[in-house]
Amino acid sequence: MSQNLKNGSHTEEKKVIFMPSGRREEIEAGTSLLDAARNMGVEIESICGGKLTCGKCMVRIEDGVFQKHGITSSPNNVTPPSEKEQKLLERMGNTDYRLSCQCFVEGDVLAFVPEEARAQKQVIRKAASDKQIEIKAAVRKVYVEVDTAELGEHRGDWGRLQDALAQQWELENLDIDWLVLRRLQSVLRADDWRVTVTIWQDREVIEVQPGYVEGTYGLAVDIGSTTIAGYLCNLRTGEVVATESQMNPQITYGEDLMSRVSFAMTDKDGTDKMHKAVIKALNSIAAKITAQVDLKAKDIQDAVFVGNTTMTHLLLGINPIELGGAPFALATRDAMDVRARELGVRLHQGARIHVLPSEAGHVGGDNVSALISEEPYLQTDEQILMVDIGTNAEITLGNQTIMYSASSPTGPAFEGAQIAYGMRAAPGAIERVRIDPETKVGRFRVIGEERWSTEWQLGDDVPEFERPGQLAAGICGSGIIEVITEMFLAGIILADGKFNPALAEHERVAFDGRSGKYMLATAAESRTGEPIYVTQDDVRAIQLAKAALYAGCKLLMNRAGVAAVDRIVLAGAFGSFIDTKYAMLLGLIPDCELPKVTAAGNAAGDGARFALLNKDKRTEAQRIAEWVTYVETAVDPSFQDEFVGAIAIPHATDPFPHLSDVLATAVQTAPAGGEAGDGGGRRRRRRRK
Amino acid sequence: MSQNLKNGSHTEEKKVIFMPSGRREEIEAGTSLLDAARNMGVEIESICGGKLTCGKCMVRIEDGVFQKHGITSSPNNVTPPSEKEQKLLERMGNTDYRLSCQCFVEGDVLAFVPEEARAQKQVIRKAASDKQIEIKAAVRKVYVEVDTAELGEHRGDWGRLQDALAQQWELENLDIDWLVLRRLQSVLRADDWRVTVTIWQDREVIEVQPGYVEGTYGLAVDIGSTTIAGYLCNLRTGEVVATESQMNPQITYGEDLMSRVSFAMTDKDGTDKMHKAVIKALNSIAAKITAQVDLKAKDIQDAVFVGNTTMTHLLLGINPIELGGAPFALATRDAMDVRARELGVRLHQGARIHVLPSEAGHVGGDNVSALISEEPYLQTDEQILMVDIGTNAEITLGNQTIMYSASSPTGPAFEGAQIAYGMRAAPGAIERVRIDPETKVGRFRVIGEERWSTEWQLGDDVPEFERPGQLAAGICGSGIIEVITEMFLAGIILADGKFNPALAEHERVAFDGRSGKYMLATAAESRTGEPIYVTQDDVRAIQLAKAALYAGCKLLMNRAGVAAVDRIVLAGAFGSFIDTKYAMLLGLIPDCELPKVTAAGNAAGDGARFALLNKDKRTEAQRIAEWVTYVETAVDPSFQDEFVGAIAIPHATDPFPHLSDVLATAVQTAPAGGEAGDGGGRRRRRRRK
Repeated sequence: MSQNLKNGSHTEEKKVIFMPSGRREEIEAGTSLLDAARNMGVEIESICGGKLTCGKCMVRIEDGVFQKHGITSSPNNVTPPSEKEQKLLERMGNTDYRLSCQCFVEGDVLAFVPEEARAQKQVIRKAASDKQIEIKAAVRKVYVEVDTAELGEHRGDWGRLQDALAQQWELENLDIDWLVLRRLQSVLRADDWRVTVTIWQDREVIEVQPGYVEGTYGLAVDIGSTTIAGYLCNLRTGEVVATESQMNPQITYGEDLMSRVSFAMTDKDGTDKMHKAVIKALNSIAAKITAQVDLKAKDIQDAVFVGNTTMTHLLLGINPIELGGAPFALATRDAMDVRARELGVRLHQGARIHVLPSEAGHVGGDNVSALISEEPYLQTDEQILMVDIGTNAEITLGNQTIMYSASSPTGPAFEGAQIAYGMRAAPGAIERVRIDPETKVGRFRVIGEERWSTEWQLGDDVPEFERPGQLAAGICGSGIIEVITEMFLAGIILADGKFNPALAEHERVAFDGRSGKYMLATAAESRTGEPIYVTQDDVRAIQLAKAALYAGCKLLMNRAGVAAVDRIVLAGAFGSFIDTKYAMLLGLIPDCELPKVTAAGNAAGDGARFALLNKDKRTEAQRIAEWVTYVETAVDPSFQDEFVGAIAIPHATDPFPHLSDVLATAVQTAPAGGEAGDGGGRRRRRRRK
Repeated sequence: MSQNLKNGSHTEEKKVIFMPSGRREEIEAGTSLLDAARNMGVEIESICGGKLTCGKCMVRIEDGVFQKHGITSSPNNVTPPSEKEQKLLERMGNTDYRLSCQCFVEGDVLAFVPEEARAQKQVIRKAASDKQIEIKAAVRKVYVEVDTAELGEHRGDWGRLQDALAQQWELENLDIDWLVLRRLQSVLRADDWRVTVTIWQDREVIEVQPGYVEGTYGLAVDIGSTTIAGYLCNLRTGEVVATESQMNPQITYGEDLMSRVSFAMTDKDGTDKMHKAVIKALNSIAAKITAQVDLKAKDIQDAVFVGNTTMTHLLLGINPIELGGAPFALATRDAMDVRARELGVRLHQGARIHVLPSEAGHVGGDNVSALISEEPYLQTDEQILMVDIGTNAEITLGNQTIMYSASSPTGPAFEGAQIAYGMRAAPGAIERVRIDPETKVGRFRVIGEERWSTEWQLGDDVPEFERPGQLAAGICGSGIIEVITEMFLAGIILADGKFNPALAEHERVAFDGRSGKYMLATAAESRTGEPIYVTQDDVRAIQLAKAALYAGCKLLMNRAGVAAVDRIVLAGAFGSFIDTKYAMLLGLIPDCELPKVTAAGNAAGDGARFALLNKDKRTEAQRIAEWVTYVETAVDPSFQDEFVGAIAIPHATDPFPHLSDVLATAVQTAPAGGEAGDGGGRRRRRRRK
């Protein structure tokens, strides 16, 4: 910066254009291209601040006449490279380029800034979307050269470092972590007062290392009730360098949220046990995810954790008891920044964990995270319904005018629990099902085997290598959705969910009193050698779960005063695996134009990653968390009505115009003598206590 | 505050006067006296904020005609007390008073605010001075009533508490310690959403307790190289409720600072060992000092620690190696706020330790602390020399225009070390000495016995109860100063420090070659049954120590361009015990009018206490630490010259006009044949390596 004017005698103005942005301005001769770019709002990356150390601020000075831009540019129109610059560029294999901090304008220049030198790097959001995000991490590294300690000058080493950071990076009013201060003196002297400083939120020095150091990593974690998924990101490039997931060990203390809350209520050390369990899992993830790329957990200098409200309460060691009963009071709705070392999470010793804010007692940071990933609140016209299906479903509806959110207690049926032959999505799980409406015989596909079951070669005479890679072991969530929908479309079950008594004699259907079951896989197709059935209880469980979800959606639509939604986004892992058509056919979600029903993948994880890479996303999350209007399903009288209507497949009364063709083929009503659904007794069990 | 207008129909203005401040203003009828006082800048204490809980905001409504003030006041000119107020006042035994938050102005009022209700309480500085200090602690408690959690309202408990603090106390943008958040929900519900909140620096909630709670305590600690002294203070009243001191256990690793720095250099765990030792001692002090008044260490919610630079480095676990050699670089000159729990100091779990800033490599927070206690920088005219004598002497000189400071390596001789019969100030230590100039026989007083030694009854026939309470066990610092001065005045030693060869035959003087010794206490007067001597080596050690101190003072006087100082303040324990006349007669300090040489007691401890009680003093300390001009004695060429001149008693050339009468009686020069001082060889040993 002190090199703004290399030669004081220059006073003329020269034309400078930066490509690909095309920004142009008249710049005083003698200005460095880096400073010119900064003045013009063109971001060029620089870590060392013009000290010929980082080699990041590359530009290519174009040679030629650029008529479109009205400029004649030449590499000779800037000062020639010094020997040191030349050597650095050669070492980097970039001799076509110059370091913009080292070339001072002497004539008109058209300079191209290559992708890797653009400071505000953009990272592809994800495969399913073409949105991009700026990198603006909360933790960053800067290189500084600090004044040597001299007799008669008493600022202290920290004072000298503060001055260097203020002068070279305009970073002021910084704190320093006490643990960094402890070893500051030896670090400053290790490489002749040249250090790389890691700073959190431009507020606190969390690391000082000798010399020039690159590489800043952060960890985004989605703490689900069932699965904890971590993403290790390079905070400078935005790249996800490793992923790692494992079961949430709290499952030992309760499968679903309510049973964990109960455990915290009944066991006096319950909160502590579950807190320690999740911390242990996070430590394991941090260790494994870094080991994948030859890093250590202590290389993780920033972290963003998201989860539902029970998960974040337990993460922070807060007893979730208040979430177990009205008025469902959160300990805090606000985002929290907690030092990892205080929580016992072993990352870099100065790293903080940013926990995304919640919306209400049952809509947590995972939903906020999905929102900042999908940004439905930026929509001007369309009404967007976003549904994240888990043990609790989080539902949001709206656009930039107003946005509603709700939580609906779907229970774990969609995850394969409470299903007779249910299992998690693992090898052998049936995930796709088609049933012939004539023969009522089903075919299916299992995880780990490409071929449909009807193409399998079975029998003692089939050689080992021609057999399927996996036999059927059970039915996972997406399989359950499909088989029940197909059973409905094939007339095996009726709209009210009961088995069709007309099929009492069918080879694939068996009745035990009034309760039927359908054989999806034969003994030969099954790993255990016993057939795999879908039972009446399974159908009921799914009916209750989908009714809760549908009722939640309807509640928000009623509140927003919209008769139909324009788009539906299915967030979460489950939403990615199910066939959206089946979700709608079964009546999980209200009617919508089918191509406008899309899966967003792990939107909660994506949002956590974005908040990790761009600190503005954290501010946005806090704003959105406070702005969204939460609707309490538990106390809304119309919820029960919507719920009862939604037990039928796809619905007792709501029309599904976009599915009319398909639905026309299904048997719509039970034959005379059939009884109405018996869901009432169970429904009570599913509601919050 | 919502009660500003109890009755909306009032619109007239009434005269309100508060005594003893005499402030008067026209106040709208219907205003509470508490609000009126606040508007008028009269500080009345209130913890509960008008909720009839704390009973702190008492006033007495005067009854009568006050001609001087032109007002007729009556208790009937305010609204009458409610039953609840009446009961609270009765319980407190204060029925003559009203609670100012509860009386609303209806007519003219002259209200007296009693001492205990004045918010800006003043605490007597200390016995030696009549200065006062405002109480404005960094940690305070406020009582709030928080909105109950309700369905359909999703701020979260922390959000509700934040809103209550903002509305009732205008406290905004607060953080909350994670550990407080963990148990916030149950605390809020324990007494129906009424809580007392402890807040650090109006920035962070460090405690929340159910209901109305009083009592906030802080700990000020002076960490000396030898002694650690703690003061437990009530942060609301300013009262010192207990004191506790103990040896600095680092003494095991080195008597003086330089030997501790050496230990840190040579033992790879040296810093850690000394760090842990001081933390252990601080924990012991915190436990014992609170036990004295039936509190626990965890009741200490704020702390200010001061010490010299080596002590504060070791406190923070920073290797002090850089302080051991030029350029004597500090890790930090700035004040630090470190959480006690991070340091392993077991106070309240949210308490922070404020470490006062340093001035330079060898002038630490203890000197800054003495400065903010004595405030010489507020002086407009007089040149004030402040001297804190310890193993290193810290010296400051100046006034509000400019202030210099220096550190001088006096060594431990003044503390009784390096003295043949030296000991610490403990029972049996000789602390006062007078020598008859004719007989050369000394009399003395020991700690633990009121009578001078000449009045003691000794011998086998003296009954036990008439014997002295203590026999002489050794000589402490103040005794050494006196005996050597008296030896000089009695002609036993000469101005150059050598024993007077003319006394070779005297019964109290013995010579071993050219080296003499003086018998101060006889065998009968001594605890060991052996006489107590003052040796030539003792005299030399004291000469070198006092020369270092004097040279430091002179260096600053030369720098400031003053020939004589106007006042001398002796800070530190040692400065309190010595007789100021003897200090000047021996030449520890330059000439000054004797009544203007005063002892300030433990000024470092006082300053720590003031910074604990008034947060503005912390800001002041930081400002002063940066403002004082530090003079490095180690590299100033004139220091050696001043040092050599100051070895003589009181000085080789400097005049002491204020002592001329006394000095006229002393033998000024050695008889012919005496040698010049042999201090050169030793001097080298005392200088910093």
